[in-house]
Amino acid sequence: MKYSIGIDLGGTYIKAGLLAADGKLSCRMVVSTCVDEGARAIATRIAQTIYQIIELAEKEDKKEIVGIGLGAAGLIIADSGVIHFSPNFPGWSDVPLLNYVTEELGGLDLPLYIDNDVNAMVLGELHHGAGVGYENAVGLTLGTGVGGGVVINRKVYHGSWNTAGELGHTVVQPDGRKCGCGNHGCLEAYAGARHIVERTQQQIAEGKKTCLDSGVLTPKQIAEAATAGDELALNIWAETGRYIAVALTSIAHILNPQIAIIGGGIAAAGENLLFQHIREEFTKRTMDIPGGMEIVPAKLGNDAGFVGAAMLVYNN
Amino acid sequence: MKYSIGIDLGGTYIKAGLLAADGKLSCRMVVSTCVDEGARAIATRIAQTIYQIIELAEKEDKKEIVGIGLGAAGLIIADSGVIHFSPNFPGWSDVPLLNYVTEELGGLDLPLYIDNDVNAMVLGELHHGAGVGYENAVGLTLGTGVGGGVVINRKVYHGSWNTAGELGHTVVQPDGRKCGCGNHGCLEAYAGARHIVERTQQQIAEGKKTCLDSGVLTPKQIAEAATAGDELALNIWAETGRYIAVALTSIAHILNPQIAIIGGGIAAAGENLLFQHIREEFTKRTMDIPGGMEIVPAKLGNDAGFVGAAMLVYNN
Repeated sequence: MKYSIGIDLGGTYIKAGLLAADGKLSCRMVVSTCVDEGARAIATRIAQTIYQIIELAEKEDKKEIVGIGLGAAGLIIADSGVIHFSPNFPGWSDVPLLNYVTEELGGLDLPLYIDNDVNAMVLGELHHGAGVGYENAVGLTLGTGVGGGVVINRKVYHGSWNTAGELGHTVVQPDGRKCGCGNHGCLEAYAGARHIVERTQQQIAEGKKTCLDSGVLTPKQIAEAATAGDELALNIWAETGRYIAVALTSIAHILNPQIAIIGGGIAAAGENLLFQHIREEFTKRTMDIPGGMEIVPAKLGNDAGFVGAAMLVYNN
Repeated sequence: MKYSIGIDLGGTYIKAGLLAADGKLSCRMVVSTCVDEGARAIATRIAQTIYQIIELAEKEDKKEIVGIGLGAAGLIIADSGVIHFSPNFPGWSDVPLLNYVTEELGGLDLPLYIDNDVNAMVLGELHHGAGVGYENAVGLTLGTGVGGGVVINRKVYHGSWNTAGELGHTVVQPDGRKCGCGNHGCLEAYAGARHIVERTQQQIAEGKKTCLDSGVLTPKQIAEAATAGDELALNIWAETGRYIAVALTSIAHILNPQIAIIGGGIAAAGENLLFQHIREEFTKRTMDIPGGMEIVPAKLGNDAGFVGAAMLVYNN
């Protein structure tokens, strides 16, 4: 059996794991990122983590490691392994992380690949999660922001300048809410966590009846209220689903993927609150395409980061 | 020099030409389509046209013909050369045009490729028109409808079910004008010829001052009025440009192409009335992408149909 090492480089933790070619994950490790120590120190910690995993793998007789993949949020230049910018590392600009880590690894003879974390997630879902059996997929991660990734013929599609798959910035309401990117009406400005909370607060301020308290809101509370039958909360999720469907309609007509895989904390709202509204509105809006497009929740959950990153080894 | 034959199969005319590998077009021919006679008769006429072009080419000593490409509007299954449906051939459903034409050609030993006409147009512009030097392009044709095409790595991108590149059905206003496809707020419902006229008529009906007469409007008249300084007409074009920019913003964030090439009769409104508004709004709306995306008018004009179709030979 072949193995690859997957590393999920977050702003708080570096999570790593060893993935067998059949998708089984072992040797999980978590270390603190310590962002303030800078890119060089982080590269050192990543290299140490890699060596620890290799050591653990050898003890377990999992010796045939074929490569290492690392996923990080932001605009990653996959060809060169440069982090152009990342929301998790505010000061970073064109940091050659692949070079730094390679230097720290010394003469370790394993290929290292770096890519955007959502690109990696879609790849992971396609190989070992919700997208098994498909070749062309898009993925959304609904969290603080709305990330996106595109896989064509089982390979990450990067576009001309590594910015393809910014699906959270599909326009769903041209004169709508202001997005963090500067544009108005991006999907993220409706389906990002902060924006879901703000939309809810706005409707409370408009005097709509609800059991929710405007001051201390989280998406989880809005989901709980909706499950308990709160009309305002139910409507917020239905609206969120419809905006996601508007974006997926554009994406389907532009890219014609076989499947859209939706993960991230917000997707935990689940079938009744969210997914049924996405599918209903999508079906209403799209042309009658032979083959259609499946819309499903991600399956890999908290492991998506490592698994996707580990699959980058097979993408190249 | 190598040559290929390009055929532009329209609802009224079959236009054909011989294209040299350097982009020079010769031996133009136009015959009536005679839609009412049915697919078999049209296949016969296409085959006759091909033989006539081969004969003309031989007389001119242009002997090395390497293949034939045919473009038609609608959903074309490029792999099999089947016309799933076409707005130009209302009764047709899954017509195996490639097989019909191949049968009519007898034993002619030249490969024949069939694809959507806008896909072919983008390919043609990339090889011999506005997109020379680029690998990743999208194209829009603004006519009665709004067609689209996507080329990745100098090859037409078909998606999973041959419906990629339906860029006219990118959503630009989710609760907006009804589109012919059934959805609301597609780009086509704002930038298609009929819709530009209807939007103008609507603003006239709202009592806005204009020199235009609501009864007999064409996009050309609206462009002439705008050029003469008519405010309502100027505003219609500025709005049209902004809607195109909203669609291109989504397209850029999803696909990250290097260039968007815009052709078709409506694009003749030109730089001042249309393109400057597209670019201005696009720049405002898109993230600061390294490399950006050029937005340019198509160059091949009336020849785009043949030239693009002829380039299908090199796409395969």
